[in-house]
Amino acid sequence: MSLVRYCVNGRLVSGVSPTNRGFAYGDGVFRTMRLLDGELQDWPLHYQTLVADCSKILMVCPSAELLMQEFKSLMSAGEDETKLSGVVKIIITRGDGARGYAPPAIAEPTRVFVWSPLPVYPEAIYTQGVALYQCQTRLASQPLLAGIKHLNRLENVLARAELKDPRFFDGLMLDYQDQVVEAVSGNLFIRKAGQVMTPILDQCGVAGVMRQKILDWYKTQGQPVSLTRLTVQDVLTADAVIITNSVYGVLQVTQLDAQPLAHNDWAHTLRTQLHYVVH
Amino acid sequence: MSLVRYCVNGRLVSGVSPTNRGFAYGDGVFRTMRLLDGELQDWPLHYQTLVADCSKILMVCPSAELLMQEFKSLMSAGEDETKLSGVVKIIITRGDGARGYAPPAIAEPTRVFVWSPLPVYPEAIYTQGVALYQCQTRLASQPLLAGIKHLNRLENVLARAELKDPRFFDGLMLDYQDQVVEAVSGNLFIRKAGQVMTPILDQCGVAGVMRQKILDWYKTQGQPVSLTRLTVQDVLTADAVIITNSVYGVLQVTQLDAQPLAHNDWAHTLRTQLHYVVH
Repeated sequence: MSLVRYCVNGRLVSGVSPTNRGFAYGDGVFRTMRLLDGELQDWPLHYQTLVADCSKILMVCPSAELLMQEFKSLMSAGEDETKLSGVVKIIITRGDGARGYAPPAIAEPTRVFVWSPLPVYPEAIYTQGVALYQCQTRLASQPLLAGIKHLNRLENVLARAELKDPRFFDGLMLDYQDQVVEAVSGNLFIRKAGQVMTPILDQCGVAGVMRQKILDWYKTQGQPVSLTRLTVQDVLTADAVIITNSVYGVLQVTQLDAQPLAHNDWAHTLRTQLHYVVH
Repeated sequence: MSLVRYCVNGRLVSGVSPTNRGFAYGDGVFRTMRLLDGELQDWPLHYQTLVADCSKILMVCPSAELLMQEFKSLMSAGEDETKLSGVVKIIITRGDGARGYAPPAIAEPTRVFVWSPLPVYPEAIYTQGVALYQCQTRLASQPLLAGIKHLNRLENVLARAELKDPRFFDGLMLDYQDQVVEAVSGNLFIRKAGQVMTPILDQCGVAGVMRQKILDWYKTQGQPVSLTRLTVQDVLTADAVIITNSVYGVLQVTQLDAQPLAHNDWAHTLRTQLHYVVH
């Protein structure tokens, strides 16, 4: 039996129509976040990002009130323990549509919440860090969709399918200009001579909410992160490298393929500074 | 009431799970074809293309026997008139999956058939031809996915959303290198000094089944089509320009934005040569 539970437009139905534009064309956006002690972590920032991403693909994001109401109706239908913790994915699509790419004149966005249990990570990913493999799959440059967490994720699927050796936690993705962009399922920062840097994501990649939290935090410290272009060489010669996402938080990267990377307590420190609770 | 009918894995269910990888990541492929007199037009070629496209994204296409059996079960449940004609879309996805991009070790592909009524076109698109607008939305170069009719179609959605003036039938899409690639919902051929040419689609674009039929037909005539790179200037100075897909067949293009194009009876002749029946 599946441990996953979901609702569509606030109802516990068996699925979405195959004519839904999310299914037909990947015509929508999504976000994944943790539910801890009954609270959706960083919901205001996730919602703000959903609104911005919807707007970039010419959709209007449903109101935060509607989304919270539908989320609560999903949670109230669950077993007790699932009301308190888990991973919650919210998907907003351009709704049902007739055949053809043309967006409906008046689109009624579809709202989907998917709850699943919190992943169980080995403790070592926090205490010892993780290894990345360098993906053969490159990201295409498409400024119109860069940064958006949209539903067109075949590149990530192909990149993740390259992982055969379970000693690697995630992959490092480059674009066709040999620039480092992100991890398959997270963002990447490096630190070198005191300067924190992360790829600019104006051509491809997903701008994660944890990435934004880190950018915001360094800004409040008067040490803005440099949004820049990075090469594999920059990663290999950094003083420290981290990957970030809303589920695992911040992880130290200690290896790229067979190559060890310099590392320190940056990830641990950042988790503390951002009040990230290891679940 | 919707005129659309569908089945998922051979059953007339209300939808697909939001955890289906087709919905979550656009992780699948599709084809659209006409149903005429109870026969799926060009089914062998569509199936062959589905197999090739699945393979390119590391999926194994279900057998033709299974697909035909499921298609027939959908059709047998319909009203009499819908058994004879319509547009049939088949979608194959990597099936249901846990959270995360990693493809399941053993994926059970999801098969979806969607039937909808034949579109009613103005007679003039066949007798007088059609006008295209030049899309601002460009196609990204991604050789790994070029030519495949996959479910990651946000670029086409954005390109089609540009169409505000109903006098235009479809849009002309370019890549970021200013090469002409395709129409938003079809392929494009030009003829110049007796030579037929079409974009090569090694960087982006969808290689349609009607395009393949045309390539095959010219080959049997000993006049192979040149797969090449075309500019807007090549389109503007061609002796004739056509767009093609499996639903409308072959259409003469007589205008690009405000610019009239040279035209002749090429589209009409090709429809006859390919035994395309205008519905």
